[in-house]
Amino acid sequence: MTTVYLDHAATTPMLPAAIEAMSEQLGRTGNPSSLHASGRHARRVVEESRERIAQALGCRPGEVVFTSGGTEADNLALKGIQWARGRGRVLASAIEHHAVLDPLDWLVQSGTAAVELLGVDRLGRLDLDALVGAVERDPDSVSLISVMWANNEVGTLQPIEDVVAIAARHGIPVHTDAVQAVGSVLVDFAGSGVDALTLTGHKIGGPFGVGALVVRRELEVTPLLHGGGQERDIRSGTIDTPAIVGFAAAVEASVKHQAEHEARLRALRERLVAGIRGAVPEAIVNGDPEHSLPGHAHLRFPGCEGDSLLMLLDARGIECSTGSACNAGVPQASHVLLAMGCTDTEARSSLRFSLGHTSTEADVDAVVEAIGPVVERARAAGAKRGL
Amino acid sequence: MTTVYLDHAATTPMLPAAIEAMSEQLGRTGNPSSLHASGRHARRVVEESRERIAQALGCRPGEVVFTSGGTEADNLALKGIQWARGRGRVLASAIEHHAVLDPLDWLVQSGTAAVELLGVDRLGRLDLDALVGAVERDPDSVSLISVMWANNEVGTLQPIEDVVAIAARHGIPVHTDAVQAVGSVLVDFAGSGVDALTLTGHKIGGPFGVGALVVRRELEVTPLLHGGGQERDIRSGTIDTPAIVGFAAAVEASVKHQAEHEARLRALRERLVAGIRGAVPEAIVNGDPEHSLPGHAHLRFPGCEGDSLLMLLDARGIECSTGSACNAGVPQASHVLLAMGCTDTEARSSLRFSLGHTSTEADVDAVVEAIGPVVERARAAGAKRGL
Repeated sequence: MTTVYLDHAATTPMLPAAIEAMSEQLGRTGNPSSLHASGRHARRVVEESRERIAQALGCRPGEVVFTSGGTEADNLALKGIQWARGRGRVLASAIEHHAVLDPLDWLVQSGTAAVELLGVDRLGRLDLDALVGAVERDPDSVSLISVMWANNEVGTLQPIEDVVAIAARHGIPVHTDAVQAVGSVLVDFAGSGVDALTLTGHKIGGPFGVGALVVRRELEVTPLLHGGGQERDIRSGTIDTPAIVGFAAAVEASVKHQAEHEARLRALRERLVAGIRGAVPEAIVNGDPEHSLPGHAHLRFPGCEGDSLLMLLDARGIECSTGSACNAGVPQASHVLLAMGCTDTEARSSLRFSLGHTSTEADVDAVVEAIGPVVERARAAGAKRGL
Repeated sequence: MTTVYLDHAATTPMLPAAIEAMSEQLGRTGNPSSLHASGRHARRVVEESRERIAQALGCRPGEVVFTSGGTEADNLALKGIQWARGRGRVLASAIEHHAVLDPLDWLVQSGTAAVELLGVDRLGRLDLDALVGAVERDPDSVSLISVMWANNEVGTLQPIEDVVAIAARHGIPVHTDAVQAVGSVLVDFAGSGVDALTLTGHKIGGPFGVGALVVRRELEVTPLLHGGGQERDIRSGTIDTPAIVGFAAAVEASVKHQAEHEARLRALRERLVAGIRGAVPEAIVNGDPEHSLPGHAHLRFPGCEGDSLLMLLDARGIECSTGSACNAGVPQASHVLLAMGCTDTEARSSLRFSLGHTSTEADVDAVVEAIGPVVERARAAGAKRGL
C-alpha cells in the first residue's frame, strides 16, 4: 500500500538539497566555537548559513538566533522578552500554538506576567477591536503582543500588519510564530515590522531539531539556556552545524519557490475541497476561505468523530490529522475550533489535510475516492455514541 | 597537510554507525506525535532508541528525557529542579562547566536560589570536607547538589560516590554533568545513585543537537520548554527522530567499547605526556594523574601563552584547545585552573590535548615532534610580553 501523506503541517519530508547539505557536514568534525582550522571551518559554514537565512527572510544575519526548533524559539521569545521587560501584560490570540499558550500559562503561574487572550471570529481571524481595546485600556502596562502569522490547525492568516500598527503606536514589541507560514506565504521580517519571529526547520523541508528566533538586536531577550555564550549570549549550547546548514538550504529553497509552491498548493487544495464536498455534501470547511495557508484543508464532517475518520483513512494509507500533532492523542476538543465558536461536538468532528511539496493530484484523488465510504462508516460508529 | 585532531573533548567525529542510523531517518517522514502509520513508525524508532540508551546507561527508559544537548539538559536539571523545589541552597563544585555555573548565576540573580560553590584541591578534585560542611550547616535548606562526573578541561574524575552518600543522609537530590564521562569511563545511572545525569551526543560519536537528561521519575522537574507536552511534559518540542536514533547508536557503541577504548586512550595519553615531557622537560601536567578521563592531557608550558601554542600548533595541522571550546576566544583565565590554585599566568599557559576514537600513535608522535619548536617560539613571544 502506498502512503498518501497529507500531514505536512505536522512535518514535511526533507528536501533533497537539505539532506545533501546536512549529510556532507555529518562527516566533518569541528565545534564552531573552537579556534583551530576545523573549528573555523565549521564557524564559516554556520555564518554563511545565517546569511542565507537572513537574505531569504529579509532580516540581518545578526538577528538570526538559532534554536533547537519552534517550541524553543517561542519559549525564548515569550519568557525571554517578558523576563527582560519585567512584569506586564502579554496579549496573545486565543488560537496560538501550545508552544505559545503554555509558556504564557507558566509565566502567569510564576507571577511574571498577566496574560490576556484575544478572541477570533468564526473564520479564525483575530478580533482587532479586542486587541485595540486591550491595548488602549492601559498601553504602558503591555509588555508584549504575540500573534501567529498563520494558524497551524485551520490555516487562517492573521492580520499581522494591523497588529504591528496597533502595537507601534505605543512602542510595544510584537512576536509572531511563523512556523507554518515561512515558505507557504510571503514572509518578510523587516517588511512586516514585527520584532521577533519564530520559524523551524522541519516544517519547510529542513531537519528536525533546528529553528530560529529572528529578533531585532535592540530588543533585550533574557536567555532560556545559559552556558557557553553562543548565539550572542542569547542561546547557549554547542552550535549544530549540520542541522543549521540543512536548515539554511531548506529556508532558501522554500522561500525561493514560495510563489509557485503557493499557487500549486492552492489549486490542489481547491481540487481536494471540491472533491470532498462532492462526495460528502454536508462537509463544512473550517477557516478563512481566502486569507489562508495554501495547503491547509480543515473540514468538519457532521456526525463523525475526527479520530475515527483519521484511523479509517490511515487504514487505507491516507495520513492526516485532527489538529496539531503536538496534541495528538489528547482526547480534548481543539482550543482553536472552540475559540472560533464551534461546539465541542463540532470541534471533535473535524479533520485537517495539509498539502506540501510532495503532494500530487493523485494524493488528492485518493482522498476524494476514500472519503465517502470512510465518512459513512465513521457516521455509523458516531451514531452509536449519540453524536 | 593532514589534520591531527586532538580536540575530542570539544567534539568528536561521528561514528559510522551513528551517521548511518541518522541518515536513514533523514529520508523518512513522520512526526512521532502523529497518530497515523508514519507517525507511529517514527515513535517506535524513538522508543527503541530510548530503550537502547537506558540499557547502556543502567537506567529505565522512562527516565531518559531527550533534549537538544548538554547545555539544555544542564539548564533543565538546575532550573527545573530548583523551580520545582522552591527556594533553597544549591551546592556545586567551583569547576563545573559554564552550562552549570551560568544557570546557577541566573537563579541567584532572579532570587530563586542561593548558590555555594565548593573548592577543589590542586588536582581538581572536589573538597569533600567543604561539601560536608556546607550541607551539615543546614541540611534542610539544601535543594540540590550538582557535581560533574569528570571535569571537561583537566579531566579529573569527581568523587560522585561520596557526594551521593553525603546527600543521601538528608535526601538531597544530586545532579551530575557526565557529558565528558559517558563512553570514556564506566557510567551507571542506577549504580551511581545520582538523581539526574546529563549527557550529549556529539561528545561520544553521535550528532550535535541532541542529548538527554536522565532523571528519576520521582524527582519533580519544572519544564524549561513548554508546549506540546512531549517527553512526559518535561520537555516540549517536536521529537527529533533522526538525531535520537544517531544518538542511541553512539551511546550504545561507546558504552559497549568503553573498557577497551579507555585502555587504548590511557596508553596513547601516556605516550603523549611522556613524549611532550621528553621534548619540553619543564612542562607540567595539570589534573589528577590517576583519577582522570583517559584521553585528556592538560599541560602547562611555563613562559608560554596557551593561545600562542594553540595557533602555532594549528599552523602545523595540529588541533587542540586551551580549555573549553565554549569559552574559546574569551581572553580570560580558566576558572577551573584558578580554582585548582593556579595563578592567572599559570592558567593562561596551559593547553588541552584530548584524544578520542580516531586518535592514533601517529597523531601523538606528530605532537611530540612539533611541541619543542612550538614552545620555543611561543616562549620567545611570551618573553616579549613579560610572561
